[in-house]
This record gives sequence, C-alpha cells and structure tokens, in this order.
Amino acid sequence: MRIVEIRVTPIAVPDVPLANTKGVHQPVFLRSVIEVETDCGRVGLGETYGAARTLAGLRSVAPMLEGLDPWNLNDLRQRTETALPDAGGVNAPTALADHKLVDVVYSAFEIACLDLAGQQAGRPVHKLLGGAVRDTVSFGGYLFFKFAKQDLTFGPDILGEVMTPDALVDQARWMVGEYGFRSLKLKGGVLEPDLEIETLLKLREAFPHHPLRIDPMGAWTVPTALRVIKALGGVEGGVLEYLEDPCRGMDAMAELSVQTDMPLATNLVVVEFEQVFEAVRKNAVQIVLSDPHYWRGATGSIHLGQMCRAAGLGVSMHSNSHLGISLAAMLHVAASTPNLTYDCDTHYPWSSHDIVKGGRRPFADGTWPVPTTPGLGVELDRDALADLHDLYSRTMVRDRDDTDEMLKYVPDYVRKVPRW
Amino acid sequence: MRIVEIRVTPIAVPDVPLANTKGVHQPVFLRSVIEVETDCGRVGLGETYGAARTLAGLRSVAPMLEGLDPWNLNDLRQRTETALPDAGGVNAPTALADHKLVDVVYSAFEIACLDLAGQQAGRPVHKLLGGAVRDTVSFGGYLFFKFAKQDLTFGPDILGEVMTPDALVDQARWMVGEYGFRSLKLKGGVLEPDLEIETLLKLREAFPHHPLRIDPMGAWTVPTALRVIKALGGVEGGVLEYLEDPCRGMDAMAELSVQTDMPLATNLVVVEFEQVFEAVRKNAVQIVLSDPHYWRGATGSIHLGQMCRAAGLGVSMHSNSHLGISLAAMLHVAASTPNLTYDCDTHYPWSSHDIVKGGRRPFADGTWPVPTTPGLGVELDRDALADLHDLYSRTMVRDRDDTDEMLKYVPDYVRKVPRW
Repeated sequence: MRIVEIRVTPIAVPDVPLANTKGVHQPVFLRSVIEVETDCGRVGLGETYGAARTLAGLRSVAPMLEGLDPWNLNDLRQRTETALPDAGGVNAPTALADHKLVDVVYSAFEIACLDLAGQQAGRPVHKLLGGAVRDTVSFGGYLFFKFAKQDLTFGPDILGEVMTPDALVDQARWMVGEYGFRSLKLKGGVLEPDLEIETLLKLREAFPHHPLRIDPMGAWTVPTALRVIKALGGVEGGVLEYLEDPCRGMDAMAELSVQTDMPLATNLVVVEFEQVFEAVRKNAVQIVLSDPHYWRGATGSIHLGQMCRAAGLGVSMHSNSHLGISLAAMLHVAASTPNLTYDCDTHYPWSSHDIVKGGRRPFADGTWPVPTTPGLGVELDRDALADLHDLYSRTMVRDRDDTDEMLKYVPDYVRKVPRW
Repeated sequence: MRIVEIRVTPIAVPDVPLANTKGVHQPVFLRSVIEVETDCGRVGLGETYGAARTLAGLRSVAPMLEGLDPWNLNDLRQRTETALPDAGGVNAPTALADHKLVDVVYSAFEIACLDLAGQQAGRPVHKLLGGAVRDTVSFGGYLFFKFAKQDLTFGPDILGEVMTPDALVDQARWMVGEYGFRSLKLKGGVLEPDLEIETLLKLREAFPHHPLRIDPMGAWTVPTALRVIKALGGVEGGVLEYLEDPCRGMDAMAELSVQTDMPLATNLVVVEFEQVFEAVRKNAVQIVLSDPHYWRGATGSIHLGQMCRAAGLGVSMHSNSHLGISLAAMLHVAASTPNLTYDCDTHYPWSSHDIVKGGRRPFADGTWPVPTTPGLGVELDRDALADLHDLYSRTMVRDRDDTDEMLKYVPDYVRKVPRW
C-alpha cells in the first residue's frame, strides 16, 4: 500500500463568539481536511488546524509523501522534518512554535495513515494503539462566557449573550440537559476573578455532583490563583476538580504548585515530551492534557499517556474547535489510554456542522461510543466538505485572531498576560 | 482473530562457561518458547527467560489469554496483571522483582501477539512499531573471560580458557574475524581492575578503530571506576565509548557521574519507566539499554526509546543468552528505534543452536538484516525445539545460578558487590 495522492482542503465552519482571555472566537473557525489516497484505492482521513501557517505546512509536506507506506510512521516523520527544514529543534531559542509545526503536520498525516492501516488490517485504529480499554469516552461540558452574535450571515447564534454568573449557569443547564455531560469546565480568564469565583460557586449549587474545572489560560498571577483556590474551598471538599493553566509559564506554575495542593493541569506549559521532564523536576503540574493534533499524532498521545503514568501525572484531553474526523481520532486515543484519569474536553457541541456521514449525533450521558469499524470509522460527506470549503473561499478569514475579533465587541480591548 | 491455545515449552541450550562478576554461565542456559495459536490457525512465536519463576508466571497467565484478540495489547496487559495478583505495584517496597515478572511475562506474550498481528496485516512487526529506519541492525562483539569447559556432555567448548588480557584479545580476533563486528564490549568485573585495564588497552592496540566498552556489572566502587576511567585515557581520545554499570545502584552511578564526563550506560539501575525520571533528576546515566524481554515488550522498548530522546539520553540494547525468536524481536525493535545510538548487544555467537528454521546464519560485518516478511519473520523448527526440550528434561538445571556454578571452578568463590 503506497500513497499516490493527497488532498488538503481548507474549510470554514460557522462559529459563535465564545470568549477567552485572548479575545473571542471569530464568526468561523478554520480546519484543514486531509484525504490520503493509496494505490489500492483506499482513502485515509485527517483533520487539523486551518490557519495559514498550518495549511502551508501541510501543502509543503503533502507532495513529499508520494510513495510512502502508510504503516511506516517513522518514514512519515522523516519526510515531514525534511520538508520543513526551517522548523528547527525544540531547544532553539525561538523555534518552539516552528517545532510544533512539524508535530502538527506530522500528526494530521499520521491520523490519516493510521486510518489506512486500520482499514487494511480490518481493525479500528484503537487496535493499532494498544486496544480500547473502554467502549465509550466521557467528555466534559465546555462552558464559555460569550457575546451575542452580531453577524448572522454564516449561521445562527446559540443562547445569545452569556456574560454573568447566572447566564453561565443557564448555559450549563442547557448543555447538561441537551448532552448529559457529567462534568463541567469553564473557560475562565474572561470576567474579573471574583465573578468567575461566583460563577463556579453557583455552578456547584446547581450541579452538586458534577466535577468542575476552570481554565483561565494563564490570566492570573500566582497570588490571584491562590486567592481563587481559597475562595473555592481549597482541595478537600472544595469546588474544583482541578485548576488548568491558572498562571502563564512553567516557573509560575511551579511557584503556585509549591503553595497549594490543588491539582494543576496544563495544555500550555507542557506541549513537548522534553517538557514532561522539566515539569516533573519542577513539580509544576499534576495533570497533562493530551491531544492527537499536536502531541505527535495518536501514537504520540499514547506515548504521552505512558510517560505520565511513569511520572505519576494524571491525563486528560485538550480540544480545539473541531469536527467529526478529529472527534474520531480523539475517541481512538482516549479509548486506548488506560490512565486517562479525567473526562476529555470537546468544543463539538458549539458547532452545528460536520463533514462526516451521520455526524452530529448527540452525546449520550456526556459520552460518545468508540468506533468499532476498521480504520477511524468515519466516512467523508463530500457535499458537506464542498459547502464548508465554499464558505472558506467566501470568508476573508485565513488565520485565527481572537484578540482582533474582540475589538468588534470591546473596541479598547487590550490583551494582558497575566490580566489579574 | 482470537487466541485458542498457548504452548509454553522450556528448553535448555548448551552454553560455555562465560564469566561475569556474579560467577559463570552454567553448562546450559534456559529459555521458554511460546507458541500462541489462534482460531484462524495462525501461530505467533515468543521467546524469553526459562528460569522456574518466569516459567511459572508464563504458565499462570497462558490459560487466561484464551479468547484474547492479539491486537489488543492493553487487554493482554490487564489479563497478565490479573493473573499475577501478587506482583504488586512498582512502588511497593520489595516488589520490584515481582513487578518485573509482570513485565517479563507480558513481554513474551506481546511479541507473540505482534507476530500474529503482523502476519494478519501482511506486514513485518517493525511496521507495527513505527517502521524500520534501517535495513540492518549493527551488533557489538560480546567478549568474555571464560573458563575451559569441564563437562562436555551437552556440547563442545569454544576457544578454551580465556583468563588473561592476551587470551581475551585472541578471542576478540576470532569474533571479529568470524562475524565482522565493528565494536566490542567486554564483560568486566571478573579480573582485577588493573588486568581489565590492560585488556582494554591491548584491545585498543589490536583494534584501533573499534568502539570499546566494558560492563563490570556494578563490581567497582566509585573511586575504582574513576581510576579505571583515568587509566583508559578519559573521554576525549580515551579508549572507552562508554562505561556500563561500573557501580551498583542509582546513587553510586550519580555520584560517579558528577565526577566524570565519561558516558555511563545501564541495564541495572534503570529497568522501569519510573526510573528514567529518577535517573534524569539525578543525572545518574547517559545511556539506557533497551530490551524487549523486560521493557514491556517491543512496544515498551519503542516507548523507552522515545522517552530517552525526550530526556536527551542515548539508547543501546541489552542481551541475555538467546536464540532466533528473541533475535528477531530485537531486530524489529532496533530497526524501528530511530535514536538507537549504539550497536546492540548479543550473546548469539556464543551458542551453536537455534530453534528457528534457517537460523545460525553468520552475522555479516557485525550486522543482521531486519526481517521483511510478515510478522516476526521466523518459523519454528519443531525438531530442534523437541531436542532442546528433551535436553531440558534431562538436565537438572531449573534456575540460573552463576555464583553456584562458579564454585565448580573456584571452590572458595564469594560474590561481593562491589568487589573492588
């Protein structure tokens, strides 16, 4: 089985103005859809970020993969590194982002290759990752402060403005009612810390048994994070299951960690395997978020899970705005990570589109079944793909810029890290 | 594909009296040969240690694997842990050896499962491990001080007594002449350090371009190790490529490491994934020896390679006395470990038997080709297996005990760690 052709299709998917500490989601989010075709007529699917830099990276590497055996992931890695020679090493001072480009591009093609290998072996992808240890994967409800959508050209709003603690609790009620999520995560760093504390206390009142988390994306100083932890009742009997990226940078996280027993999670300060060692040495975090889109694909995410087990760290899974191919990849990885100790994140309920056939099934009790058919277990809906590619062509959006988008809602908005 | 039957056959293989700091090899070495048969008639092969405890572990777990899908390695792991409930966790104070039993038993069956999965997928096992990055694997010549074999009942001696520096150089000449090895490793800790220093200096004279190593298996104190390093010319322009397990225990290795730039390798103080973190924190070693027989199989060994890359550690591969099934497993792992930075070890030239068809081909230039046929790429020679099982039945040897064997040659031998 050899690769003969690769199609990379950028798409734009209608989004709603979800807020975070950087700014707010644009009217569309961008994704790249990858189809890898082989000499035996099989097509493997991948999905990843759609920003210009990722798209350019995918398009630089794609022609180099002609003739590749999709089983040979080391060859895929070598070809990706060769095709992106300026990506540099992880230790080069400014090359972190470039290095991640290699990982991101590799990851997208790796998922498609695993899809092909699984199809050929007649096995779901999770069997190539060590095998599913669970039949369904449990996700948390992802809660956001948000603006009311101004521009409805590309699609309707969901729930209108949510900028108070009470409105956020209503959003949680909708999300739990609709999808049955059994844990909840608030994207924080948007309102004043006191209002986010109030929000979490009200969520606890409304959902006494749901594990709760907050992710302020580094918006807080160490003293602010300590104040929030205290106000939320600390660890024992407190409101939080864990605190995700309260402060920016490995050293700030370590400084906080030494002053609290609250488990700290991250998808910002540990994004490379090398950093797992640094995080352990500094005891900076207790939970690492996996993600097959940048942790060197599905096999890399499994490897991260094994490293975390050896290091005594917990594992959860990160999400960006995504559609069904990414969801399938996340499911296979989550199912075959024995020490996945927390519900996974997903933005999936915030979109109302998909590019896979039979997509948009509702979550049942906050879970999604692990695919059991060969490969990833999803098929491309070519009409839907064409529609969203057409939308991509019609919008001017070519990069994600939440801060720029924020100026439409808050004209004097200035991004600050930390903010409080 | 489901497992319907497992056969575990203990065998004894004629050996020669190779010396190490514990003692000397017995007249036979023991191995267990595993045949895993599936409902579709395929047979997967594995080979591991043959000592009583391993054999009992294999036999306890084997019946529990009925119905297992060989692709589902997480299920294999769970069943192995369940079947060996007393093995304890890695952090239990005295459970380290027990924990390794789980890993050893898992590893043996995992190799057989990968053989089956590869056969079904029509792919060599290395494709299931990420794909070969090399067509041949390079091995080092493994040199031993040895006694002349006293009891020739089970097979002839090789080269007679080798107990002086000059005799050892002759042995190296034979081994390089016969197999073309391009690097050499001396099992040290047998003669006085000054004699082993002399041996290495004479090896350097006879083989000016061969990387040289010595493995005294923890026989030296830190000051002795420092004296040896100095006598061998240190790192730059010195005689040694690396020094393997000169001192016993993680802390002694760390104490030595802080006083020398000589790369330190180990297969004794880092044998668990958890210990990679400890070794990095203490900067105790710079090279870890992989081994699919105890590093949680082939997939675990690949994972170790990835961890070592992230930690900035080198990787080589450890060997025990073994036959062709183990050799095949080692080849697949070595081929698909991109950062295998050193030649692998092998005891293979010290035996003249095999249980695989067409085995005992000579090494060419110290290398062995990576199998390219589906699965492990080896077939069982049932007549040879029956002969060696018969030998097992006839010998009284049921455990490896090099120290006890040593008393036949040196009646007042006492094992000491460290010895010098």
